[in-house]
Amino acid sequence: MATPKLIALDWGSTSARAYLMSDESEVIGQRQVPLGILNVKDRDFEGALIELCGPWLLVRADTPIVAAGMIGSRQGWLEVPYVQCPAGLNQLAVGMKSVELAKQRKLWIVPGVSTAPGEMPPDVMRGEEAQIYGALTIAERTEGSGLFVLPGTHSKWVRVEDGQIVWFKTFMTGELFSVLSQHSIIGKLMAEGGPPDPEAFERAVDHAHRDPFGLSSQLFSARTLPLFDKLPATSIADYLSGLLIGHEIYTAERAMTAMNPQHDGVTLVGEVALVRNYQRALTLLGWSSTAAPAFPAASGLWRIADRAGLLGLRLQTLSLV
Amino acid sequence: MATPKLIALDWGSTSARAYLMSDESEVIGQRQVPLGILNVKDRDFEGALIELCGPWLLVRADTPIVAAGMIGSRQGWLEVPYVQCPAGLNQLAVGMKSVELAKQRKLWIVPGVSTAPGEMPPDVMRGEEAQIYGALTIAERTEGSGLFVLPGTHSKWVRVEDGQIVWFKTFMTGELFSVLSQHSIIGKLMAEGGPPDPEAFERAVDHAHRDPFGLSSQLFSARTLPLFDKLPATSIADYLSGLLIGHEIYTAERAMTAMNPQHDGVTLVGEVALVRNYQRALTLLGWSSTAAPAFPAASGLWRIADRAGLLGLRLQTLSLV
Repeated sequence: MATPKLIALDWGSTSARAYLMSDESEVIGQRQVPLGILNVKDRDFEGALIELCGPWLLVRADTPIVAAGMIGSRQGWLEVPYVQCPAGLNQLAVGMKSVELAKQRKLWIVPGVSTAPGEMPPDVMRGEEAQIYGALTIAERTEGSGLFVLPGTHSKWVRVEDGQIVWFKTFMTGELFSVLSQHSIIGKLMAEGGPPDPEAFERAVDHAHRDPFGLSSQLFSARTLPLFDKLPATSIADYLSGLLIGHEIYTAERAMTAMNPQHDGVTLVGEVALVRNYQRALTLLGWSSTAAPAFPAASGLWRIADRAGLLGLRLQTLSLV
Repeated sequence: MATPKLIALDWGSTSARAYLMSDESEVIGQRQVPLGILNVKDRDFEGALIELCGPWLLVRADTPIVAAGMIGSRQGWLEVPYVQCPAGLNQLAVGMKSVELAKQRKLWIVPGVSTAPGEMPPDVMRGEEAQIYGALTIAERTEGSGLFVLPGTHSKWVRVEDGQIVWFKTFMTGELFSVLSQHSIIGKLMAEGGPPDPEAFERAVDHAHRDPFGLSSQLFSARTLPLFDKLPATSIADYLSGLLIGHEIYTAERAMTAMNPQHDGVTLVGEVALVRNYQRALTLLGWSSTAAPAFPAASGLWRIADRAGLLGLRLQTLSLV
């Protein structure tokens, strides 16, 4: 049986995932609990850690624990200052801070990344940096360059050059979908239970691209089309998703083409169904894209822990002896 | 004392306003109740009408009653089909439908307006048409042309040519402000009780204009600026308002300049504080604007009732005898 070498935590706002990794950097165990930092009561993060890791904490007391995500934010366990772009593995490893646990154990927390000081307004990520290095590792492009898109509540477009995060931009796409579905007049019209409607999604992507009046006007079409029986109530969610994803891709494309006319497609990193929607929208708008394996946070955390020397002598080094 | 001649109702989603008008078309009484159609229980619209009009219903049983707004929608008292653009006073007068009340009385409901059939997606207004004709009347431009902006939950940009509504576009500016303030991460950071911050508002208008990455990205700056102590928590609401109003004006300007390079300013129709914010943003973006008197619905309803023959022989006609 493989020897546990690292406990890697992807600890976000609403959920937390734990990966047990072998000395060959393979994931040999996974756990998930709904104890994102917003759901941890009375700041009992140690209790949440015990629930998240379960028996793994007991088996080997010297297995290092490394976490990325909102756990390192001001509302998290310990605020770990952002490292600024350009940021690579070295900056992330050096920027980690640790929380003291019982029995002289430590939890290491990876810093988030902020955009370069001149960039106004500033932009931030926490957790995505580990996913990006994981995606690079899995793709065997550890020192590569490229444009990464990480869809989600706060979707990120990230430019990596020679293994360094040099620039990124956040879009509130997922959060807009959520608040508009739950609290707006658009949500009031939505009905559940219908089949997925890819045509409605694609029509909305096209509309986001063509209609020149911008997002706050385009959104109103999710109200008027059902009113005129041109969109079934069960398809409104697909349509709204298409509008928001289409808006994100279209404005990103327009702005980035102006900044840098050359681009050779994007790498998508994230949850499978969401990545599939982004790929469809990207294809419609003329972009090529490839999908990274879902949730590469574990591989990224391994790389950061390794760079920080938490894994002892590295296997690659050993094999040279 | 002036003789009551018309009861004019501006009956929307969340509130309802009633105006008692004299035979010289002046407002001689005003009432307001929170009985917008969403707040009317068990569809007891007749009970709501009695509460809204109070003693006016009893004084003279033959005073006509005319209403505009969401009261004529599918969720209202009686659905009155939209009239299509181009739509003028005649179409609005002919398109009215009536609800039978007790004692052989009637409530006349003005139709809403929808965009021309070819326009996709369709767009709709209910209530704004009365305000526009009111603003034209007050400005003594009853057969005029111009671009009208009606800020609100669903802000409208309306082109009037020779006294006809020929085209319009809705922006969900007010509703986005409301749902993002109440339900998003941006709202979580907001603090109340500070002084108004016009500088934060203007900074946001400028950002909406300059940042090429579109609204869903720009919104994230309302989270990151407070995070880096570059925007006080008590100024986030002003900043968010500036982003959304700036986005509306900037995208409307860009799209409309492409459609029709000539424009000679806009007429703003709406609530005083909101109109003032729009005027500041319009000025920053290089537009000239004039503000119509607030809530001109009463004057517009008078015009429509008059055109429909509900007011009997018109004073102007009488004076010619």
